[in-house]
Amino acid sequence: MGEGEGTTYHMTPDEFRRWGAEAVEWVARYMERVEEFPVLSRSAPGDIRRSLPPHPPDRGEPFDAIFRDLDEVIMPGITHWQSPRFFGYFPANVSGPSILGELLSAGLGVQGMLWSTSPACTELETHVLDWLVELFGLPERFLSSGAGGGVIQDSASSAALCALLAARERATEGASNRRGVDRRLTVYTTSQAHSSIEKAVRVAGLGSEALRLVGVDERYSMRPQDLERALEEDIRSGHLPCLVSATVGTTSSNAIDPIAAIGEVCQRHGVWLHVDSAMSGVAAVCPELRFVNDGLEAADSYCVNPHKWMFVNFDCDAFYVADRAALVGALSILPEYLRNTATESGAVIDYRDWQIPLGRRFRALKLWATVRHYGAEGLRHHVRKHVRMAAQLAEQVAADGDFELVAPVPLNLVCFRHRAGDEVNQRILDRLNSSGELFLTHTRLDGALVLRMSIGAAATEPRHVEEAWNAIRRVAAEVQGG
Amino acid sequence: MGEGEGTTYHMTPDEFRRWGAEAVEWVARYMERVEEFPVLSRSAPGDIRRSLPPHPPDRGEPFDAIFRDLDEVIMPGITHWQSPRFFGYFPANVSGPSILGELLSAGLGVQGMLWSTSPACTELETHVLDWLVELFGLPERFLSSGAGGGVIQDSASSAALCALLAARERATEGASNRRGVDRRLTVYTTSQAHSSIEKAVRVAGLGSEALRLVGVDERYSMRPQDLERALEEDIRSGHLPCLVSATVGTTSSNAIDPIAAIGEVCQRHGVWLHVDSAMSGVAAVCPELRFVNDGLEAADSYCVNPHKWMFVNFDCDAFYVADRAALVGALSILPEYLRNTATESGAVIDYRDWQIPLGRRFRALKLWATVRHYGAEGLRHHVRKHVRMAAQLAEQVAADGDFELVAPVPLNLVCFRHRAGDEVNQRILDRLNSSGELFLTHTRLDGALVLRMSIGAAATEPRHVEEAWNAIRRVAAEVQGG
Repeated sequence: MGEGEGTTYHMTPDEFRRWGAEAVEWVARYMERVEEFPVLSRSAPGDIRRSLPPHPPDRGEPFDAIFRDLDEVIMPGITHWQSPRFFGYFPANVSGPSILGELLSAGLGVQGMLWSTSPACTELETHVLDWLVELFGLPERFLSSGAGGGVIQDSASSAALCALLAARERATEGASNRRGVDRRLTVYTTSQAHSSIEKAVRVAGLGSEALRLVGVDERYSMRPQDLERALEEDIRSGHLPCLVSATVGTTSSNAIDPIAAIGEVCQRHGVWLHVDSAMSGVAAVCPELRFVNDGLEAADSYCVNPHKWMFVNFDCDAFYVADRAALVGALSILPEYLRNTATESGAVIDYRDWQIPLGRRFRALKLWATVRHYGAEGLRHHVRKHVRMAAQLAEQVAADGDFELVAPVPLNLVCFRHRAGDEVNQRILDRLNSSGELFLTHTRLDGALVLRMSIGAAATEPRHVEEAWNAIRRVAAEVQGG
Repeated sequence: MGEGEGTTYHMTPDEFRRWGAEAVEWVARYMERVEEFPVLSRSAPGDIRRSLPPHPPDRGEPFDAIFRDLDEVIMPGITHWQSPRFFGYFPANVSGPSILGELLSAGLGVQGMLWSTSPACTELETHVLDWLVELFGLPERFLSSGAGGGVIQDSASSAALCALLAARERATEGASNRRGVDRRLTVYTTSQAHSSIEKAVRVAGLGSEALRLVGVDERYSMRPQDLERALEEDIRSGHLPCLVSATVGTTSSNAIDPIAAIGEVCQRHGVWLHVDSAMSGVAAVCPELRFVNDGLEAADSYCVNPHKWMFVNFDCDAFYVADRAALVGALSILPEYLRNTATESGAVIDYRDWQIPLGRRFRALKLWATVRHYGAEGLRHHVRKHVRMAAQLAEQVAADGDFELVAPVPLNLVCFRHRAGDEVNQRILDRLNSSGELFLTHTRLDGALVLRMSIGAAATEPRHVEEAWNAIRRVAAEVQGG
């Protein structure tokens, strides 16, 4: 709130210094005390809104009112994803360097829709995504120096949609963009794939009936022979298969589809292979975990989320294509008001043609700052630590007479259940989450309710996992009246 | 970079305090000196990348290396959207309170995909979007207390796509999501609409041949009678019109489609009306400019971008629907791992079902902080100031013998051209932009090259517009050898 005569109403640079210092201090204190909060918010629906004024302010308010309400109104409604005792879903980590990268990006306030609207925004993004190819040992075909390249998407959902659009246009030679979707198009994944695949199939106009759920084996991984059979049947009956979406590290159980074998099938039938490695792909920063990249040479597109397991705050999905012309061909429209010399020279990348929205902020800054702060060494340190904690928990679960492991633990997700059945597992879950001590989520595997413990928060230490396991056993005894 | 024995590699809270203070100071200094930079970056393609190391670092680096490279490598590649002399495209403003909201959001690092994953993230968003209904005097049907409601999208492009998906499913009674797009579907807009409409039509699988460009009048506004005729012809020939996308404030020339008359046509034919008011909608904060809302009662969906003219840094598009069930019906898929009590009770909003991606960050914080900092009064002050500057420039252009106004100036965009023809205008544009003194973009109206001067940067004062007009006249004389 500007003050006095001749006010501009803007926050002056000096006011920004003052409130910026408070905001930095607030975040630093949050880092220090995040463990103290109940992990899952205890708000009931409507609680937060009831504490907020019904009308917007007519006159500006001093910024300390924001901090007061942040503590008093907002914080009770926060589920603490950064808590070391957050084991739900997949991690969504932040880190100091990433937060500062976001701050600098907001301060610069540039748009990266075209190369010319801020060349550094585009070139840093291309460059750091090339770095990730090296950091993760990804196939060279994803480097921007060849026919491919990387781009930051907001999420793996958007990456999947862009992959599908490129695949759709390749399969129909651009006709779907002009004449509408060819109803013969089909897409292949498994029942274990992320819901974003079905969402993309709907959004892109293929309809969910075009989605084939290929069978999985006892490890919940796609059976390549079932994929081949499905493709052959569809081709025989006049369908036009356009995309296979395989997963390395499913959300349910961290299952890993056999990419090499799937890739062979796709190549045989000329079908676009997209690989969704949103969480698990980050493991490839460790040479000994690079099995997550097996077979990736055959992928036409690939995504991994630094905003999950690599300490870059949301949103930062790294999406790669082997043939950028296919992606740009599917998504490019050039109106007069965006024409410019650099674009027409063909010498630059305009990332607006690699994504659904037109506008885009300078997200490469936070990715760059994070990679430079940690170095490959620091990133490896944390991945290894999380994987080690998960392996140890898996051993304890396996050794416990009351619980059983229900899926392999290739990385940092442990899926297990109490042997006493769904009802007991549901009660364990509910009681643990409402205790605030820790936060877990669930899934269903072969119809049974399964507890998922995803170990990947930046602050999680072995003691947090040990305490969680003790709490799980204690609560299991309680809910059984023990 | 953590240091010493037992390093965690994380930036500690104290290190964050130190580097956070530097980052705040960097942004404050940027605010102070933004006017000094050449507005358009002078980088040539590849300049930035050549200054960056070819490989990612194996060991972490101290954070001051980031600041050094920010100044030396990144800044020469920045086109300064926050410069008071940035008159290109539409504004993409930031402000102190918004930057701090973004910082706090990054620090909290919560996901708002479900209500339960952080109730405050969802409830603050719903609440502040209700505030905007009041602030802008939007129809009450967009309030969350009825059947409608608002959601933050990354951009008006994504809002248009979501509107189309909802309209597509309503027109086909959900059949497109299941069986694939019905090729009879058609969409209506004008040649002046944003390219995101055609992009949405392609993405959603209708194909660009399904897009009808309705005729415009001499003010570049849609002719309702042409719309009616197009609808009737299509219906007669077996098509299924699903969406009309009208614009209040086109990107080319700030043309305003007659929403009331268009709304009547849409209601008569049962077609979804989407209104894209991305830039101009913010004018409604001023009662005397509320003509931008005329007829909006008939709209099924609407969007306005606080990240353009309301000092909220990108991304923050406010998207409203009158019938949220139609939107959720088009976009909802509920896998087991996202099931939870709150969702199944039906008492909460899960914003993942209002957008394409699954994940979402806490963007309401920056919108809330900005509205509270400025108050309606502060926001009005700036809108009025920009509109006044544009009116004054328009008068000067109209009074100048060498230049002519080529479109009405309802708000803050002035479209004009030198009378000497396209080549002279192109040379004026190129010379001005390469001078670094100011930045303008162009469009084409009735085939002629037109200079666009968009007056809306937070820091723009009357002297910047006067200096720009002087520079334009000086350069015009120069390129003509005067």
